[in-house]
Amino acid sequence: MELPTSAIQTGSTIQAETEHWFEYPVIAQPHHTDYGGVVWHGTYLTWMESARVECLRSIGVDFAELVALGCDLPVVELSLKYHRPVQLGMKAIVKTRLNQTQGVRMHWDYKIQSPDTQELFVSGRVTLVGVDREKGKIVRQLPAHLQNALGKLKQG
Amino acid sequence: MELPTSAIQTGSTIQAETEHWFEYPVIAQPHHTDYGGVVWHGTYLTWMESARVECLRSIGVDFAELVALGCDLPVVELSLKYHRPVQLGMKAIVKTRLNQTQGVRMHWDYKIQSPDTQELFVSGRVTLVGVDREKGKIVRQLPAHLQNALGKLKQG
Amino acid sequence: MELPTSAIQTGSTIQAETEHWFEYPVIAQPHHTDYGGVVWHGTYLTWMESARVECLRSIGVDFAELVALGCDLPVVELSLKYHRPVQLGMKAIVKTRLNQTQGVRMHWDYKIQSPDTQELFVSGRVTLVGVDREKGKIVRQLPAHLQNALGKLKQG
Amino acid sequence: MELPTSAIQTGSTIQAETEHWFEYPVIAQPHHTDYGGVVWHGTYLTWMESARVECLRSIGVDFAELVALGCDLPVVELSLKYHRPVQLGMKAIVKTRLNQTQGVRMHWDYKIQSPDTQELFVSGRVTLVGVDREKGKIVRQLPAHLQNALGKLKQG
Repeated sequence: MELPTSAIQTGSTIQAETEHWFEYPVIAQPHHTDYGGVVWHGTYLTWMESARVECLRSIGVDFAELVALGCDLPVVELSLKYHRPVQLGMKAIVKTRLNQTQGVRMHWDYKIQSPDTQELFVSGRVTLVGVDREKGKIVRQLPAHLQNALGKLKQG
Repeated sequence: MELPTSAIQTGSTIQAETEHWFEYPVIAQPHHTDYGGVVWHGTYLTWMESARVECLRSIGVDFAELVALGCDLPVVELSLKYHRPVQLGMKAIVKTRLNQTQGVRMHWDYKIQSPDTQELFVSGRVTLVGVDREKGKIVRQLPAHLQNALGKLKQG
Repeated sequence: MELPTSAIQTGSTIQAETEHWFEYPVIAQPHHTDYGGVVWHGTYLTWMESARVECLRSIGVDFAELVALGCDLPVVELSLKYHRPVQLGMKAIVKTRLNQTQGVRMHWDYKIQSPDTQELFVSGRVTLVGVDREKGKIVRQLPAHLQNALGKLKQG
Repeated sequence: MELPTSAIQTGSTIQAETEHWFEYPVIAQPHHTDYGGVVWHGTYLTWMESARVECLRSIGVDFAELVALGCDLPVVELSLKYHRPVQLGMKAIVKTRLNQTQGVRMHWDYKIQSPDTQELFVSGRVTLVGVDREKGKIVRQLPAHLQNALGKLKQG
């Protein structure tokens, strides 16, 4: 039921749970690897962050602009499972999806897979929270413009 | 860099829960930070890895030697909570402790705190597994020399 | 990763000096930045490496395959000038070109520019050398397949 | 004649050329390495930056404080030669020295050596410039407190 197409959000909204992943393609470059010839376990966080920022851009949210306007979205929680390593030179697709928002917390799901979807490299979840940069405190509510955009993601 | 506290605590066994953490001191350098002026969330994984490698060294296990002998210890699972950010120039102590081993899986607990222990920045757990580098498969049992050394950690 | 804009070799061969750059587009993501809100000076090396690997791929050389066959191409020299910083969220084009080969040494030129080419962020040069991975020594000559491919680059 | 302690050498001034290097000890951790089992060429920049920040601290300049007060010291130029790779688990000493200041430009020399000084891994030079963070422009002169401190370094 996984749609292996490289695109956001094509199909129907019936099975929202499995559809609507944003896809961010990567290649394992030398600087991503460690002595084992495979991607170092912390490198995946850089890919996941890029995928998240580009997913936001795809729905009209420019992350740098959000920051300039005084709102940051730091990671407050993350959990990852490493199933198989990505090797030097391999291509992979970082898939991400906003699972849910709880007040000002956003839970993002992740799967990093081979382009043919036959191999699952990493799976995980990352939680962000909205923070007022000036006050250094969690915001009471997300900026309206972000909230509206996230609404689109959840509808798929 | 002052490295004032790097040693295994060998104190009493009464409060096993809070004692016996290996301590690895760090300072937040410019390359550890992001646009927010605080340590980027993935940087903590580099500190945690260094703390783990140095903890192993403190009990007589040279990680590079282990690798040269054909055994790797990749991360297979990790979960982190980010409580407060470490800011540029701040000192912190990365505390780690082998929580338990289950067969060839090792669970390490982490706390990253201010040197005076009054602030908790990050807490988490990392799971490693023994892998035979040549076969690319999980080992049946950890090398005897590693297993013996880990025994010391668990006794505290 | 499909790099849809990466094209070498646009125009005529008259102005060989300014044409024939391989172009690798990037976006400054949060993990690329430091406390200053701009790309950390060492991050550019990751972009430059990716550009070089993708330039090689564009002429039929798969870097991971080269490594698997026993030939590595470590950096032996580099020099960079930082003209202006790339800020969080900015797009840039990493341009690279094989300037010349001297025996088994390859000199690559770099320019990192704004997409409209109006701003120059970084310029530099990187020298690689062919190494026999097994012997840990510099090769006497580059593998024929690499040498042929590099010939194409120099012709432009 | 090299003093292998991590401190500024305050000994005689006779051989100014070889004395007075600030020494910053490092160990090559897994995340520093690449597929070759050696330190990735860009990682050295993180070590060099840490050595520079700690050298400044040793003469009473707190880099984070300097930044908080509105002065930044970005890298504007760097050149490196890679002589031999540092392998996973190896110890090394990053040696740095303020070579000279020209107005608001500071030239720092670097050598990364084995602890016994018998092997030279990397050598290079990094140039910094003082920048007014608010204006985003090069300062007319370095803050007095920094200038005084740097004077100590040059006297040795």
